[in-house]
Amino acid sequence: MTILGTITVLSVLSATTPDVFISQPMDQIALVFGGIVGDRHFGWTKTAGVREGQYPRGTEILNRRQISLVAEEDLERIAVGLGVPTVRPEWLGANFLVRGFPDWTRLAVGAHLLFPGGAGLLSSGENRPCRHPGEVLAQHYPDRRDIAACFVRVADHRRGIVAMVEREGTVRVGDEIRIVGG
Amino acid sequence: MTILGTITVLSVLSATTPDVFISQPMDQIALVFGGIVGDRHFGWTKTAGVREGQYPRGTEILNRRQISLVAEEDLERIAVGLGVPTVRPEWLGANFLVRGFPDWTRLAVGAHLLFPGGAGLLSSGENRPCRHPGEVLAQHYPDRRDIAACFVRVADHRRGIVAMVEREGTVRVGDEIRIVGG
Repeated sequence: MTILGTITVLSVLSATTPDVFISQPMDQIALVFGGIVGDRHFGWTKTAGVREGQYPRGTEILNRRQISLVAEEDLERIAVGLGVPTVRPEWLGANFLVRGFPDWTRLAVGAHLLFPGGAGLLSSGENRPCRHPGEVLAQHYPDRRDIAACFVRVADHRRGIVAMVEREGTVRVGDEIRIVGG
Repeated sequence: MTILGTITVLSVLSATTPDVFISQPMDQIALVFGGIVGDRHFGWTKTAGVREGQYPRGTEILNRRQISLVAEEDLERIAVGLGVPTVRPEWLGANFLVRGFPDWTRLAVGAHLLFPGGAGLLSSGENRPCRHPGEVLAQHYPDRRDIAACFVRVADHRRGIVAMVEREGTVRVGDEIRIVGG
């Protein structure tokens, strides 16, 4: 078991309305097997989509995308790349905003994220950008018609990671996550 | 999605008695979410053991060890290393014996194994050797008192991989598995 480092939780968020992509800040979040209860990404399984092209679209598969974690450093770089003042984690539908780990989006598949309250996450690796956040950004910067198209390119390798719940527990703002190798 | 190669299923096996480590050959196996119904490793979750030292022993965690796959080439190398005629997959409690992929045990965490019947497995990476198979081997080669102690060392990086069910389906002897990157 290799200790890779630590990272701090700055915000916890959940997308509590099934058909709304944007997440909302919370005080704390209970992680259970399958994800965050009531979150639009909750579930042991999901239907295969464009990111799971190895399976026929719409078939039931294991849900490796239960939780989304983005780094503040990456959001700052995306904002610079797009030429906008800020990119907020809720616009990307993120569940955790974190800070303090180098090159967060490249965290290895299979790395374990260990929270002080006992919860654990298993990294499913990089979250490849799709168009949804770009469309949300376009609503916030209506004078920038090109932003939705640019987002996918600028956010590549900066979109954070997705993860599965490996052990249940509560996550709070300010938690220090220990990260260990797979 | 990177195509990594193919590998052939030579045997399918299940350990159908909860307290018996050894697996038994079957004609075919139905993979469902959680593993193989009735197999001793079946379940969405498991209790943390020696291999999951990042969690307190005995706590409930995600089961990444639903299925065990060993390569015939690796078993041949283990047999040579131990100086015995053969090492059988059932002695290692394996579920699938496969052949035809280079350095099988080093298959990347997150690789997808796609079966012709529709099933899919997600690689959890290398299965680190424990003492159980060595103790089974010692029963089959009673004149080799050292074999249980030697097994862990000789089988390192040759013990195959463990995996989770990513999509349900049936697996049959002779199936060609397509392997794609994560």
